[in-house]
Amino acid sequence: LCPPGVLSLCCRPPSWDRAPRQPPGLLLAPCRAFSNNKIQVELDESSGVAMMKFKSPPVNSLSLDFLTEFSISLEKLENDRACRGVIITSAIPKIFSSGLDIMEMCGKNVEHYGEFWRAVQEMWLRLYGSNMVTVAAVNGSSPAGGCLIALSCDYRIMAENPKFSIGLNEAQLGIVAPFWFKDTFVNVVGHRIAESSLQLGSLHPAPEALKLGLVDELVPEEKLLEKASAVMAQWLALPDHARQLTKSMMRKAVLDRLVSHREEDIKYFINFISKESIQKSLRMYMEMLKKKKS
Amino acid sequence: LCPPGVLSLCCRPPSWDRAPRQPPGLLLAPCRAFSNNKIQVELDESSGVAMMKFKSPPVNSLSLDFLTEFSISLEKLENDRACRGVIITSAIPKIFSSGLDIMEMCGKNVEHYGEFWRAVQEMWLRLYGSNMVTVAAVNGSSPAGGCLIALSCDYRIMAENPKFSIGLNEAQLGIVAPFWFKDTFVNVVGHRIAESSLQLGSLHPAPEALKLGLVDELVPEEKLLEKASAVMAQWLALPDHARQLTKSMMRKAVLDRLVSHREEDIKYFINFISKESIQKSLRMYMEMLKKKKS
Amino acid sequence: LCPPGVLSLCCRPPSWDRAPRQPPGLLLAPCRAFSNNKIQVELDESSGVAMMKFKSPPVNSLSLDFLTEFSISLEKLENDRACRGVIITSAIPKIFSSGLDIMEMCGKNVEHYGEFWRAVQEMWLRLYGSNMVTVAAVNGSSPAGGCLIALSCDYRIMAENPKFSIGLNEAQLGIVAPFWFKDTFVNVVGHRIAESSLQLGSLHPAPEALKLGLVDELVPEEKLLEKASAVMAQWLALPDHARQLTKSMMRKAVLDRLVSHREEDIKYFINFISKESIQKSLRMYMEMLKKKKS
Repeated sequence: LCPPGVLSLCCRPPSWDRAPRQPPGLLLAPCRAFSNNKIQVELDESSGVAMMKFKSPPVNSLSLDFLTEFSISLEKLENDRACRGVIITSAIPKIFSSGLDIMEMCGKNVEHYGEFWRAVQEMWLRLYGSNMVTVAAVNGSSPAGGCLIALSCDYRIMAENPKFSIGLNEAQLGIVAPFWFKDTFVNVVGHRIAESSLQLGSLHPAPEALKLGLVDELVPEEKLLEKASAVMAQWLALPDHARQLTKSMMRKAVLDRLVSHREEDIKYFINFISKESIQKSLRMYMEMLKKKKS
Repeated sequence: LCPPGVLSLCCRPPSWDRAPRQPPGLLLAPCRAFSNNKIQVELDESSGVAMMKFKSPPVNSLSLDFLTEFSISLEKLENDRACRGVIITSAIPKIFSSGLDIMEMCGKNVEHYGEFWRAVQEMWLRLYGSNMVTVAAVNGSSPAGGCLIALSCDYRIMAENPKFSIGLNEAQLGIVAPFWFKDTFVNVVGHRIAESSLQLGSLHPAPEALKLGLVDELVPEEKLLEKASAVMAQWLALPDHARQLTKSMMRKAVLDRLVSHREEDIKYFINFISKESIQKSLRMYMEMLKKKKS
Repeated sequence: LCPPGVLSLCCRPPSWDRAPRQPPGLLLAPCRAFSNNKIQVELDESSGVAMMKFKSPPVNSLSLDFLTEFSISLEKLENDRACRGVIITSAIPKIFSSGLDIMEMCGKNVEHYGEFWRAVQEMWLRLYGSNMVTVAAVNGSSPAGGCLIALSCDYRIMAENPKFSIGLNEAQLGIVAPFWFKDTFVNVVGHRIAESSLQLGSLHPAPEALKLGLVDELVPEEKLLEKASAVMAQWLALPDHARQLTKSMMRKAVLDRLVSHREEDIKYFINFISKESIQKSLRMYMEMLKKKKS
């Protein structure tokens, strides 16, 4: 068991292995790639920018394994002096991330719910509190937890495809986004938009997301990574130290709120998700998804 | 006298009487109407939506009697399992509500001021904290307390008539909107707009109100109720429980602030409104209104 | 030495002298002018409006002397019953104010840094907390501390010249805007814009500043003061007392935060600015500026 206050992932064996340096083929700069199961990470040492690609078919859902790998990847990059920024995108067409994996919240025991929720918190604390510049290149739909990942970055660029949508749609599943999802959302879109969007569980098509400030910019899909790199270069032109202190000053209040209520938040989640009415909602939602597929 | 902490309206005889069920004439669904003095309430049981119409001539001003009837109506609907949402509008042409009744604040004794202010607080606590979906169909001008009612709903639709205006114009009367009016306003329009609008006591014409985010939508006056019903249906498509928890999470901080400072707020109001300089301002304002009429 | 809690400027000899009343020449109203070294102040007693013009060549940088004179001027006007509003502008072409004087932060001793920072705090506490109506007529570029002055006014009008820019660009110098700069900024532009703008140390050209809400209005440069007077007249049409209480209600939380952390903030600044790495950044920045000039 983890001692209190220690990150949950300290107790999980690291799944991270450094791959041998890639030969500098088409790439202009030396580049380190890391083999992972669900997330592909490549660090370009010349620019200090890591590219993180979610590749967990079919829809990059945030399972316990995915979240753990994500947190460990972030931690590794955070501690790597060669890395100053991360671009987060998806290797799967049409979907950035479908959000929390409902399988982890349905029909499991209390211990599992607790472990899962701690991993969700961990991922957010690492990403929202990252010292690195974080740019989300949202190249597909991004509901719920997928939206949270984008919201937690410093800058959000989305493919200008009106078929792609983004939002915290938890309410549509009969569940409630936790207070720190809400705080992160309010920091981006303000109170009025957050209030109606969260209550309606809205998924906003890309053009609407831009209008609401939920994403900062839309670009044609084929230019998404190019644009993300240009934005990243602009952010990295600033000295790290002042930028990091500024970022921390802006986000500290919201981060601290979860840190100081972490255990209550886990208990609340376990209690909420264990309710038969909620379990029923989730089962119905999953069956609906299955029917949709077939 | 009410024991401390108990709602002021517990001590007032309920003026509410259930009218006999209306015969299903032009209405497609069975509908219960309640006869009230100043507010007409009709609950459509098939949709779960109540229509609340202010009809207190000449300008739906928020007198002690009006506020009490409003709070009791809200409480009854809140406790009625058949009711999930309320549309609030006016039965009087050109005016939604003119706000707090100046007669209640002018030349009365300290006990009266206290009772009146408690009723204003009560109304806001019930409306802003309502578990129901609340839609304001603002079909006329809506200054001061009238604006507060609209701000306290989940969604605001206004008739697209530039002659109708809305805003917290208290400063124009030489009085100050209390902190919880301000908090509600900031939650809707943000700090910058709230700061200048409150200091100037601005009344914003409908098109400007839309631009500032003070209302969510403008529609032609004759389509206002139709649109309000459509919006309501969209909100009611979500499961109640998750939506209610989300709403409470968004509004709790601001509601709690009044709940924990309620008695000081009443004392502050009594002290402020009893000042001879303020009384003089209000008398001058009332005389100006009288001259305008004649 | 000042007793704790007493304004730092109480210990400095006032540099303020009333000039003899100006003969009412071209001016329609009697007008008092005050001779100062770095800031020209003229109070029009008929309108109750003071015009404050920064004239400290070459770029109105906020030196200790400038800040002290600014605070004393504000205090004098605040206590002058004839004065209800102040328009703040620059007498130097193309620059409103270049912000904190780097000379005061570079190569000085700890006592000097402390005295300087207390003067910066003092200026902001007086301006942001002023009972007067304050209008910034931003007739040139306005980086860093210059931007803070504009942000602290009630209303910001800027010359519509895209060559003029405004922003809190501290991060570009490798330093961090303190929390109360940030709080003031967030109150004006909201959290999302503040977060990226502060991290990037952005200087926004006038048209962009308007779009972000960082300024309220753009007008042709030659109409700037005329417009500022018109806006001022609109604000002064309201009764002072209610407007002042409203302003205080809106700004109190942010003002109180500095008041209750003033000494820690000074210590933090001294510690930060004394670091060799920061001193090196500032020296490099100053040399860059010198090269630019020659």
